[in-house]
Amino acid sequence: MASVRLVALKAPYVPSSLRNLSNFLLLRTHAFTVRDFSTAMSPPSTAVIYDQYGPPDSVTRIVEFSPVELKETDVCVKMLAAPINPSDINRIEGVYPVRPQLPSVGGYEGVGEVHSLGSSVKDFSPGDWVIPSPPTSGTWQTYVVKDQSVWHKIDKGTPIEYAASITVNPLTALKMLEDFASLKAGDAIVQNGATSIVGQCIIQLARNQGIHSINIIRDRAGSDEVKEKLTKLGANQVFTESQLEVKNVKALLADDIPEPALGFNCVGGNAASLVLKFLRQGGTMVTYGGMSKKPITVSTSSFIFKDLSLRGFWLQQWMTSDKAKECRKMIDYLLSLVREGKLTYEMELTPFSDFHAAMDKALGKLGSQPKQVIKF
Amino acid sequence: MASVRLVALKAPYVPSSLRNLSNFLLLRTHAFTVRDFSTAMSPPSTAVIYDQYGPPDSVTRIVEFSPVELKETDVCVKMLAAPINPSDINRIEGVYPVRPQLPSVGGYEGVGEVHSLGSSVKDFSPGDWVIPSPPTSGTWQTYVVKDQSVWHKIDKGTPIEYAASITVNPLTALKMLEDFASLKAGDAIVQNGATSIVGQCIIQLARNQGIHSINIIRDRAGSDEVKEKLTKLGANQVFTESQLEVKNVKALLADDIPEPALGFNCVGGNAASLVLKFLRQGGTMVTYGGMSKKPITVSTSSFIFKDLSLRGFWLQQWMTSDKAKECRKMIDYLLSLVREGKLTYEMELTPFSDFHAAMDKALGKLGSQPKQVIKF
Repeated sequence: MASVRLVALKAPYVPSSLRNLSNFLLLRTHAFTVRDFSTAMSPPSTAVIYDQYGPPDSVTRIVEFSPVELKETDVCVKMLAAPINPSDINRIEGVYPVRPQLPSVGGYEGVGEVHSLGSSVKDFSPGDWVIPSPPTSGTWQTYVVKDQSVWHKIDKGTPIEYAASITVNPLTALKMLEDFASLKAGDAIVQNGATSIVGQCIIQLARNQGIHSINIIRDRAGSDEVKEKLTKLGANQVFTESQLEVKNVKALLADDIPEPALGFNCVGGNAASLVLKFLRQGGTMVTYGGMSKKPITVSTSSFIFKDLSLRGFWLQQWMTSDKAKECRKMIDYLLSLVREGKLTYEMELTPFSDFHAAMDKALGKLGSQPKQVIKF
Repeated sequence: MASVRLVALKAPYVPSSLRNLSNFLLLRTHAFTVRDFSTAMSPPSTAVIYDQYGPPDSVTRIVEFSPVELKETDVCVKMLAAPINPSDINRIEGVYPVRPQLPSVGGYEGVGEVHSLGSSVKDFSPGDWVIPSPPTSGTWQTYVVKDQSVWHKIDKGTPIEYAASITVNPLTALKMLEDFASLKAGDAIVQNGATSIVGQCIIQLARNQGIHSINIIRDRAGSDEVKEKLTKLGANQVFTESQLEVKNVKALLADDIPEPALGFNCVGGNAASLVLKFLRQGGTMVTYGGMSKKPITVSTSSFIFKDLSLRGFWLQQWMTSDKAKECRKMIDYLLSLVREGKLTYEMELTPFSDFHAAMDKALGKLGSQPKQVIKF
């Protein structure tokens, strides 16, 4: 029998992502009255929660949740690592289109080790490594209890920081490369924001498929080093925005690089216009971010005579549950690339005890920093 | 034997759309030396030509072409009527993306009566009404000789002004309604530039299919009369741009009208943004014109979170020869709607002898005027 420890909380709730308030109260009643002594219980869980939207460095706090009872099909996972993604920050700020129900545990992806199982669970064993797939909110805590259908077993040979962060950024890159054009070896893509993690993944995934990448970065001190770094990842051409202030950007294409059929935009404004300029007749630009906070401006003739299509991509919308199978297959492929050294990006593992320091770095308070991954 | 009359031309050429210069010279030689006396010849043709790009009222002139010899599979058509479309004007101005080879005969669509046939033509008889389908340049002349594959026989019960103008505008409307979304009765579309001929066709074609139309017009004197006119055609709702300066345009939708999945833009600027505002999650806006000469500006979140697609449509690009069959089927459908009184738009038939007056009207020199259709 699992030990039951009721921990004093500043507010008497369990966030919806773990158990909602009414269930929690029921559980407490249940625990002390009609308890089934054979029922497995989770350990208590230490979590990063927020009970109002606002700046993540002020509205988040660490609390401890009491153990919860595992239902027949539940799996209790001891979290190993979970990243702080920009979208996690937006969710806490309340500016994400899907606002989490408050109070909420932070985090949306991560990796953990199976700790204990509901009575009918057959497909997992304690010690297995799993990720929530599709991801679900609430990964910034030491123990997560979710139905077995949530979890996807992965190869334990994967570095935990990659296992923890494989969905939100790399899967976005892979899905966007597959969904909007039929690319084959020798084709080309163009993207702005090439130094972002999605951008770096696009470069490497394209290279793996023999697809050329044309990359646009903002003008900055040290842009030569950035170009070198992206080139090492497999970028075929890298331009700063100011280098593209020419009449015909296509004249800058290397001889072996065709006009790209597909472009990716995570910046907006002028950087989006530059992607459009590179696209070939009938090409598609996919917007997945707007770092400059500027809109996208397009001429009428781009649509009519150049026949461009402008689309958008949002991983969370695609990853509805009926896509779980496809999603997991792609995750397995991405993790295999990681293990083969064909997909890399910079991250920093920070102990959970230093969560607020990691959050400060993720918020950019200390200048440009590697992606922060919390290690539990 | 057809009589041969060589007419003095200011310049010794036949435009490419009829016969190119070298062929013409060959023909002259042929005609007077090795002539096959059984070969059918066209009558001479009076044509509107231009030998430089520029303002249509100054660069066009009327010339007479000498007869041409009909090849085995040629059909000689006596033109009955041909419209002056805005794209004809753009072609003459040299601002159209596909610039006609100079010198060129004006016009791109029209209707005519079969005059005479090449020796192997079986599918046409003199007196048949035909349209070039897909259209080809050079319809502003009294006789057009083209291969039989160019011509599509139509029902002679059709008013000639509609037969002459059925492709460029109505087919654009029909094709755009069919190609970019699967609409069914009860669905809705939104469009700006609703008073354009394409706009009027969209209203009527939508109504015929039980599809609601939400229409945006520019603010103007007499907008109430315009609204009334469009409503009579079948428009469900008509708004001026200024009426849509509200926080939530969708609150203006009538109770029985769902958020539109498809929008059409032929204006650009603010009028395009208004179309985007009406669109439902996952909707598509198709741009087919840019009357305001302003670009289209779109927010990042419209792409990512509202999942909008922006596309373009250009009839000329679609109507490549392998689409001829589909194109003709749609033309037949449109002409049947015309004959049933279900598709109407305002036109004025002007005699060919008044071509320059018709062109002045088409150029807007006399204010708003009905579409000009030349009657030969």
